[in-house]
Amino acid sequence: MPKLVDHDERRVQLAEAAWRIIRRLGIEGASVRNIAEEAGMSLGSLRHYFSTQSELLAFSMNLVSERVHRRIQQIEWTGDPRKDTEKVIFELLPLDDERLTEMQVWLSFTSKALADPTLQDLNRNVFESFRTGLRRCVIGLMDAGMAASDLDVDNEVMRLHALVDGLALHGAHYPEQLPPEKAIRIVRHHLDGLRNG
Amino acid sequence: MPKLVDHDERRVQLAEAAWRIIRRLGIEGASVRNIAEEAGMSLGSLRHYFSTQSELLAFSMNLVSERVHRRIQQIEWTGDPRKDTEKVIFELLPLDDERLTEMQVWLSFTSKALADPTLQDLNRNVFESFRTGLRRCVIGLMDAGMAASDLDVDNEVMRLHALVDGLALHGAHYPEQLPPEKAIRIVRHHLDGLRNG
Repeated sequence: MPKLVDHDERRVQLAEAAWRIIRRLGIEGASVRNIAEEAGMSLGSLRHYFSTQSELLAFSMNLVSERVHRRIQQIEWTGDPRKDTEKVIFELLPLDDERLTEMQVWLSFTSKALADPTLQDLNRNVFESFRTGLRRCVIGLMDAGMAASDLDVDNEVMRLHALVDGLALHGAHYPEQLPPEKAIRIVRHHLDGLRNG
Repeated sequence: MPKLVDHDERRVQLAEAAWRIIRRLGIEGASVRNIAEEAGMSLGSLRHYFSTQSELLAFSMNLVSERVHRRIQQIEWTGDPRKDTEKVIFELLPLDDERLTEMQVWLSFTSKALADPTLQDLNRNVFESFRTGLRRCVIGLMDAGMAASDLDVDNEVMRLHALVDGLALHGAHYPEQLPPEKAIRIVRHHLDGLRNG
């Protein structure tokens, strides 16, 4: 009797196969046929888990953001707003292979999202949830006297968010130009600068 | 006798048709068939101007960067390093419809570039030319006493470049979240901060 494979596990396997295809061929290579083949599955079996390519890609994109969120939830908080802010930001940067893959795949999804409302909703949710998280960080730094008390919070949050996403973009596209230690140094320098308002 | 249409002009028309397709359908919709149809041209005529899809896309991506470069070359320099730095940066941000289109199309190309060496070379050239331009700006500000004299130039240039590209990314994906006046305010605040080192 064949072993019963968990339905959700199969969906995750297919989503991860989609990531590998996207990294290798770009998002336009992510056909259900290519993904099924990459996952070692027939097209008929794939249809059992996802009835459309759009559904598979939405699940696959969502899985990236779930992994990032899970890592953020698992952070061991120190109670020091500055250290904790760094921990959050470092989860959003491609500082190791896992995060580099996530970021490269995510960027492919976000550019597809411009023409796909379901993916665009996911994209927007992640954008807003990161923005909320970074806002909490900036306010935490201000409350602890680690950032100037007269900061324009909206502007600082937008600036920090743009910096983090810009570093992520550069790290994903030109890993050799932005080694992890440089990205870390730039983030720390930026956070230091918040003391000056 | 039919009017002779300039060869280069036709190529530009096709490149611009590719942009419209990419904005509407995403990069994976940018087949030669779709682009020919969008340009009101037969597939056979298109082949006269570009023998492969890859060649057409490379030309189309390159045209984006040429337009940005041309606008930068046409800047009326004031001689004030701070004002001139702002002028350069504002050409790199999606502050009007023309620049918004360029940026959205460019982002689609850059994510395709992860899996296409020709596009990746173009991408890298543009990255390096912007970095060089921003370095010149930062050094100009330091020389004029408009930025701290002890700045770590490499770090500041990388930070400014990441900020600008992050703002461009947010402005392209969420125009309603980052109206032009906010992007401008954030850039000015960032440049002010360079005085503090």
